[in-house]
Amino acid sequence: MTQLTAARQGKLTPQMEYVLADEPISAMALQTGIAEGSIVIPANRNHQHLTPYGIGRGLRVKVNANIGTSSDLQSLDSELEKLQVAIDSGAHAVMDLSTGGEINHVRREILSRCPVPLGTVPIYQAVTEGVKKRGFLGKVTVDDFFSAVENQAEDGVDFMTIHCGVTLRTLEALRRSGRITDVVSRGGAFLIEWMIYNNRENPFYEHYDRLLEVAREYDVTLSLGDGLRPGCLADATDRPQVQELIYLGELTERAWDADVQVMIEGPGHVPIDQIEANVLLEKKLCQGAPFYVLGPLVTDVAPGYDHLVGAIGGAIAAKAGADFLCYVTPAEHLKLPDADDVKEGVIASRIAAHVGDIAHGLPGALEWDNQMAAKRKQLDWEGQISLAIDPQKARKFRESAPPADQQVCSMCGEFCAIKKLESYLHPKDK
Amino acid sequence: MTQLTAARQGKLTPQMEYVLADEPISAMALQTGIAEGSIVIPANRNHQHLTPYGIGRGLRVKVNANIGTSSDLQSLDSELEKLQVAIDSGAHAVMDLSTGGEINHVRREILSRCPVPLGTVPIYQAVTEGVKKRGFLGKVTVDDFFSAVENQAEDGVDFMTIHCGVTLRTLEALRRSGRITDVVSRGGAFLIEWMIYNNRENPFYEHYDRLLEVAREYDVTLSLGDGLRPGCLADATDRPQVQELIYLGELTERAWDADVQVMIEGPGHVPIDQIEANVLLEKKLCQGAPFYVLGPLVTDVAPGYDHLVGAIGGAIAAKAGADFLCYVTPAEHLKLPDADDVKEGVIASRIAAHVGDIAHGLPGALEWDNQMAAKRKQLDWEGQISLAIDPQKARKFRESAPPADQQVCSMCGEFCAIKKLESYLHPKDK
Repeated sequence: MTQLTAARQGKLTPQMEYVLADEPISAMALQTGIAEGSIVIPANRNHQHLTPYGIGRGLRVKVNANIGTSSDLQSLDSELEKLQVAIDSGAHAVMDLSTGGEINHVRREILSRCPVPLGTVPIYQAVTEGVKKRGFLGKVTVDDFFSAVENQAEDGVDFMTIHCGVTLRTLEALRRSGRITDVVSRGGAFLIEWMIYNNRENPFYEHYDRLLEVAREYDVTLSLGDGLRPGCLADATDRPQVQELIYLGELTERAWDADVQVMIEGPGHVPIDQIEANVLLEKKLCQGAPFYVLGPLVTDVAPGYDHLVGAIGGAIAAKAGADFLCYVTPAEHLKLPDADDVKEGVIASRIAAHVGDIAHGLPGALEWDNQMAAKRKQLDWEGQISLAIDPQKARKFRESAPPADQQVCSMCGEFCAIKKLESYLHPKDK
Repeated sequence: MTQLTAARQGKLTPQMEYVLADEPISAMALQTGIAEGSIVIPANRNHQHLTPYGIGRGLRVKVNANIGTSSDLQSLDSELEKLQVAIDSGAHAVMDLSTGGEINHVRREILSRCPVPLGTVPIYQAVTEGVKKRGFLGKVTVDDFFSAVENQAEDGVDFMTIHCGVTLRTLEALRRSGRITDVVSRGGAFLIEWMIYNNRENPFYEHYDRLLEVAREYDVTLSLGDGLRPGCLADATDRPQVQELIYLGELTERAWDADVQVMIEGPGHVPIDQIEANVLLEKKLCQGAPFYVLGPLVTDVAPGYDHLVGAIGGAIAAKAGADFLCYVTPAEHLKLPDADDVKEGVIASRIAAHVGDIAHGLPGALEWDNQMAAKRKQLDWEGQISLAIDPQKARKFRESAPPADQQVCSMCGEFCAIKKLESYLHPKDK
């Protein structure tokens, strides 16, 4: 029984109880949200020691951190370090996107240490191993694709990105589109290469029911991938992207009919004035399924700062209704992130998510800011540091330039506005 | 003759010609904008070797960097280094907010090396020196306040923050407001302390005509300061803030009547869903005068990341019509920024400003992104680095994890979507 089945039957699962203990939502609203598909709880029945999170309407906006090896950087230890940093920095979910080294081993090691929902893109394993075995991507078989899905589901992966909407029709829209960057999704690119070589439909679209069977068996939440997501501002909200989203909306309903939880992946690179429209479009075309956005990045010109660029887009997307933010690190477009990049990326996305929560008036959100404001007013520096989203960094900054008067900071020093005015504005309090 | 007088008379000054050479605006639109007050060109007739910038409607959104000593950190060399870093990072204006050491000397050294418009807050000097001379802030005289303004104007300062709207009535609104953080503006706090002690009206409000005379003589652009800006999200858009803004609107019209250029300072700490309203309010209450915002910061809980928090707010404000972004550095709320913080702050604000330019459809804005996208598609890494907003950082990231195949990066390595798909999608190009 999936969380979706349970919710439809009015049952309160242990996973739902976890979510209720941590979120300002009633049991009825949570059950209704899951039953209607506007909330998911990615929780594979085989993921041991999982602390489940809910993602969707009425819940706090969540943050995912991508880790994983590449063909250039295959160290398991580095990935385990990044996992720990992501968790310590407050990521609510982690995706293992490994394409280098012993992929099964890396994933199992990560999964055994991952207390939050773990996601994957199984086609990465299917292709990297299939190419080794069969010599060429075009010769990877449909069974190869599904074996990766089945093995990973059995291992306990909680959510999987599958690019089911990259169909021959979507590809036709792409060919007619005149995009600058064509395809920037690895999974999308793999499928398109396979489809063109074999002149066949996307196997995950053609055999979607087979996918649903696996997902239902383990309660894997499908994260319907956007293989045609724009790779630059100019390609945003174009026909290939929207064509794919229409397919994803149809596939969402089929997933729900099969008791499978589903969320939708979204862009990517989007000008600031198109973000709201993208969220609206997803909510309409996919019947309110949770929206999982990558960034979005609101400019292409800032490599080295894409965590910040993604935080701008993420905050606006969250305010508009996006439910789940995939982090972007400062290393994006330049290299595989290291542990420092992971931390910067998680904090940047958490800031964006929190800003969205404030805009939604979510109980508890603005209260955090108000507590910080009160500590500032009281000149309580330890209080400020302990309330900071990253106490370690706040302390490091403050201690790097200690003020002569410990009540203030070295920016205004003796001319601290708060300190100076207190006795004038509130003489009675003295 | 000020730029405003010249524009009203249909004259094209050398400063206007500088602006025209660098911006996608016609001479007539520029002149009209200056004449109507929606554009300013801060250019003191005594500022030697100035490259003027225009700020306002139809122009690129500009970025200011605050530097200056404090009572805790008084090194002139550090401030000159920060000046250079700010200019090298692309700041369009710099404010010297010094309150420590030999303030006249620091300002003059900065001014002699500052190719962009320089701003100050003269009350900082009036108070820090006045307190030394007279023993107590309340005893600083009206002439002390104006002497600082006059001396700085004569030195060549291009724009000055003067908190003219902190009136007895505004203070009454503050007392009734129940704010968490009361007053966080240093200039505002100085004035309020003086006003309460002396039980007198704000001298810059009471003797506003005297201020206008000085401003007109040197063509100093007044930056009407927001002494009551909110210091936390909860205090945003409240009665004291809006009461002050009403005064600033009235004072804007009086400045225009006296041929003085003027812009309006704005918050500060503002929840994401109140930013557009704040911009609209300024444009309406102040008759379209350029809006100069600090951040805005969309959450209070992220000390150490306030450059990023300010970039979220700045991008949204810029999109909504804010004309000039005052940077916020990662050191904000914790310490005086150092040179590294200055760089991070300027780049963060430049990203926000550029995102606003894209949203406005400003000619040339999206083209930069499209050029970057084309370089990505071509796997032209040197091209990407040279187009990056911070080429130095982009190169550092890329070189810290060099890929085996120089055509790709270490994130996707051999599975680079762009590289793999090129031959499939565009076989005829080969």
